[in-house]
Amino acid sequence: MSPHSLNAVPNAGAAGKTPADTPSGPPDGRPRRTTVVSQSDIEETILHPGTVRINVQGAFIVDEGPATPQSEEEGTHDPRDIRLPNHTAVVSHVAVDIGGSLAKLVYFSREGNSLSIGGRLNFVKFETDKIDKCIEFMRKLQRDHQQLNGSRPDELCIMATGGGAFKYYDKVREALGVEVIREDEMECLIIGLDFFITEIPNEVFTYSEDQPMEFAPFLSQPSSIYPYLLVNIGSGVSMVKVSGPRQYERIGGTSLGGGTLWGLLSLLTGARNFDDMLQLASNGDNATVDLLVGDIYGTAYNKIGLKSNHIASSFGKVYKMKRAAESEAEDGCNGDGKHHDPDELVQGSSEMPHGPAKFRPEDISRSLLYAVSNNIGQLAHLHAEKHQLPRIYFGGSFIGGHSQTMNTLSYAIRFWSKGTRQAYFLRHEGYLGAVGAFLKRQPRNWGRRNSFEER
Amino acid sequence: MSPHSLNAVPNAGAAGKTPADTPSGPPDGRPRRTTVVSQSDIEETILHPGTVRINVQGAFIVDEGPATPQSEEEGTHDPRDIRLPNHTAVVSHVAVDIGGSLAKLVYFSREGNSLSIGGRLNFVKFETDKIDKCIEFMRKLQRDHQQLNGSRPDELCIMATGGGAFKYYDKVREALGVEVIREDEMECLIIGLDFFITEIPNEVFTYSEDQPMEFAPFLSQPSSIYPYLLVNIGSGVSMVKVSGPRQYERIGGTSLGGGTLWGLLSLLTGARNFDDMLQLASNGDNATVDLLVGDIYGTAYNKIGLKSNHIASSFGKVYKMKRAAESEAEDGCNGDGKHHDPDELVQGSSEMPHGPAKFRPEDISRSLLYAVSNNIGQLAHLHAEKHQLPRIYFGGSFIGGHSQTMNTLSYAIRFWSKGTRQAYFLRHEGYLGAVGAFLKRQPRNWGRRNSFEER
Repeated sequence: MSPHSLNAVPNAGAAGKTPADTPSGPPDGRPRRTTVVSQSDIEETILHPGTVRINVQGAFIVDEGPATPQSEEEGTHDPRDIRLPNHTAVVSHVAVDIGGSLAKLVYFSREGNSLSIGGRLNFVKFETDKIDKCIEFMRKLQRDHQQLNGSRPDELCIMATGGGAFKYYDKVREALGVEVIREDEMECLIIGLDFFITEIPNEVFTYSEDQPMEFAPFLSQPSSIYPYLLVNIGSGVSMVKVSGPRQYERIGGTSLGGGTLWGLLSLLTGARNFDDMLQLASNGDNATVDLLVGDIYGTAYNKIGLKSNHIASSFGKVYKMKRAAESEAEDGCNGDGKHHDPDELVQGSSEMPHGPAKFRPEDISRSLLYAVSNNIGQLAHLHAEKHQLPRIYFGGSFIGGHSQTMNTLSYAIRFWSKGTRQAYFLRHEGYLGAVGAFLKRQPRNWGRRNSFEER
Repeated sequence: MSPHSLNAVPNAGAAGKTPADTPSGPPDGRPRRTTVVSQSDIEETILHPGTVRINVQGAFIVDEGPATPQSEEEGTHDPRDIRLPNHTAVVSHVAVDIGGSLAKLVYFSREGNSLSIGGRLNFVKFETDKIDKCIEFMRKLQRDHQQLNGSRPDELCIMATGGGAFKYYDKVREALGVEVIREDEMECLIIGLDFFITEIPNEVFTYSEDQPMEFAPFLSQPSSIYPYLLVNIGSGVSMVKVSGPRQYERIGGTSLGGGTLWGLLSLLTGARNFDDMLQLASNGDNATVDLLVGDIYGTAYNKIGLKSNHIASSFGKVYKMKRAAESEAEDGCNGDGKHHDPDELVQGSSEMPHGPAKFRPEDISRSLLYAVSNNIGQLAHLHAEKHQLPRIYFGGSFIGGHSQTMNTLSYAIRFWSKGTRQAYFLRHEGYLGAVGAFLKRQPRNWGRRNSFEER
């Protein structure tokens, strides 16, 4: 049975919300962090998370994007560039992490003003099925690199990771005529995550309903971050135990990940992209499709601590309601002698293929988002507990900065761990692997603490 | 990432089946049990599991049903009665376990021949939404009881458990005019399970592809069964640690259970009942909708031991294929310059509501059955490991004697535990709670070992 997580999006329907689910203080009794974003800035900060400029000496996040990133033919530019003000050397490589659904690309660009030193890391993503667009983009980077530095085209090399680094190896190498260096996916993920945790201030944050984006304190001792659990949520989910720099082990995972949510919602709702699905979920009420403890007991099951609004069965009302509606349709009004209240059947805008019972796509989206997120949260907790990992970092493109997803994951971790563990998120969550691959080959003296060796 | 479990139903499409997944011997090196059902009897034994009469001194399973149980207005009679040949006293109660989807009823009947001593336990289930049918059935039992024993109608009392014992308490009591004794759900589950394990020979079995129904040896020392994990799969899933008689604790659960499978499949396929859904699943190939490791890597990811046919993302191909089909439909043949092979898009008999991409209901059913079963198996393993429980018993109406479900759960337990744990199933899997409630009030000297006290 999963916790019934709460709606964290202002102005959305807050069905099932009870005072008991809304703790007035931090549930684990920990002191507040010092860096806090005020409530009014939350949505803006999630959409444009790079507005806070905090350290001109080292690397930092800089926002240039005008709006929420959207999928386009030319790739989606993440508005959260990372400025590297003190960097001067020529960077002659790009890095790409080609996953099951998305290809994530990281590249360095010098500042436009030729008098400035330094430059920035840029983040772009493509659908893996449109890998040609990604290759075309890299060709453009290749041309720019040649123009700026006068080098031969083959001097820009490609660092590649993710499954597609193997599947598309020949294709990329032949298309660009350059060296393609393949790096292990798990290693890149944790190198990238270590970099974000230890080098980029205001990158890592926690999420709760009353403090939706609370930056984690910047750790002065990089070694103190270990051990930790990385839960990387892409199409599928990988759970990686990290014991120290480059010391990692994949300890688990689940096939119920982003691909499951996107796949099922594309079948069940009219939504055609992730943003639409998440928007639907924000406006939904899962209680119309999920079977809650209260639906079974008529009350809470106090003996084992299950509240009446806990989800006993995700989609547990659907089969029953469809059956009831079908019987009624077959039997006519006087059929089975049982009459349903008008509000027993939810009318919605979605056209389901079979049977007369209708369910709102909003409610279906919310239920499935809860189901997938709660399940990942529970598995993450069990793995963190088993391996005694105090911190859990969530990465991967599934989260997408979406507050409801982060709230559900955070709630699940707090619920299952009884408040002893917390979920940490990253503003560049989707780019851990790509940044890790990028850092596998880098100029000297890169990074705040020179913690990365040159390849 | 979940194991890609295999098709265990003879003559069904065995897509994705490779020699590596078909071990020729027991994977964990354990010795074979002594009681083995031959391959040819498997399907028959699962459909009519009570044909083996093994002990006329004690209780045993007896089969009288002519065919597979089917949902009917009057309730579904399970063909697996349990004969109690040495019982003589009048039994003046029935027991009902009212869950989120199904109400399970257990009652005692004397042998038809009035010269025989003894009688039998009968098992009937109803849809919870048709609770009136269940009440009507109990009224009939009440009349029969009065006729046979000359007692007043109110002398037959109702033992009730499950959430519905609370929700429908007043309704049942008023309708029948009898005492309704409510019992705790978890306690009834484990009393019922203990009874089946220790009192009923050939009730508990293990499942593997080469030995689909292998009865567990009958334990001579009832105390040796502890500790164990009960995974009860109904609409939702409860995991209960059992340390000794009546010593139990709910240690976990998940909302991704039978209700999720039934609900989503009733939306996604034309199937209108559980049997149809399971039949679809037997004929499906999940590789058309699931993203496999091989789809991402082009090969296995050997470094972390993931085979190419492991499921990386359940339904992970759906979103991509729908997007591709939609782009093509919008752009016409010359649209995005990318042409799909005819066999890249799966044509099927299901009419999906949105978009031109079609997926076979068989493949969707199989994928979702794998996803739900694998997930339950993984969580069960993690809980068993955490609490050091050597045996895992699966109960609840989700399994329904379906070989593919049992095979997936068994495979998942073996996979995640690296062969150190095994899944155990029961022929009366859906009636643990009802039998437990029945046994809470019973005549003296009931049971093989007199292990149950009188209430």
